[in-house]
Amino acid sequence: MQDSTTMSRTDSPNRLIASNRVEGTAVYNRAGEKLGRVEYFMVDKQSGKADYAVMSFGGLFGLGEDHYPLPWDVLDYDADQGGYIVDLDKEKLTGGPRYRANETPEYDRTYGQQVYGYYGIAYPW
Amino acid sequence: MQDSTTMSRTDSPNRLIASNRVEGTAVYNRAGEKLGRVEYFMVDKQSGKADYAVMSFGGLFGLGEDHYPLPWDVLDYDADQGGYIVDLDKEKLTGGPRYRANETPEYDRTYGQQVYGYYGIAYPW
Repeated sequence: MQDSTTMSRTDSPNRLIASNRVEGTAVYNRAGEKLGRVEYFMVDKQSGKADYAVMSFGGLFGLGEDHYPLPWDVLDYDADQGGYIVDLDKEKLTGGPRYRANETPEYDRTYGQQVYGYYGIAYPW
Repeated sequence: MQDSTTMSRTDSPNRLIASNRVEGTAVYNRAGEKLGRVEYFMVDKQSGKADYAVMSFGGLFGLGEDHYPLPWDVLDYDADQGGYIVDLDKEKLTGGPRYRANETPEYDRTYGQQVYGYYGIAYPW
């Protein structure tokens, strides 16, 4: 049974997670199938706001260890599964912007517009 | 010489940092003295917003490796130093809420009010 006091969004100790635990958190699709995991996320140095989650598929789709940046708001946290849900099909994800695991692109406005645009989200910066 | 195009806040590739690079970023005081480093930060799972930076002093003050949660907004990013600046004196910091490095408190509202209150910042959640 849920305790409405402790389970409220604002009061739950579980509202927050350590940054180094987000790294490694599983990503699922709506059907509950594990797609991959969050490798790290890109955060604004000053505001502390995450703009992208960078995920890998762990070779699931035969794609090796490429890293796929997703607009942060594409992810929904699911407390029951203890991971993030991305409501996108495999083809959409695997066709998205990606880079080699040992590289990091310049996360500038041009790249932001490319990534956000691919997922149909206005790039707000 | 700064290039106003690339150095603007919104367009700079350096506006963003990978989460696993925040971990380890140096923290300085206003005088430019290194106080310690960010060990990790506490982030809202859904919104992706950092609420706390958790820093250590690296034994600088003879305090071992305790972890000190700070309201995120206490930190200012300084691009020249490549680290965060905290405009608080040593006594204020070392007298603040802390816990052992191998522990994690429940980051609930009570704890939030304690930490934010200590640093004179309204706890907004």
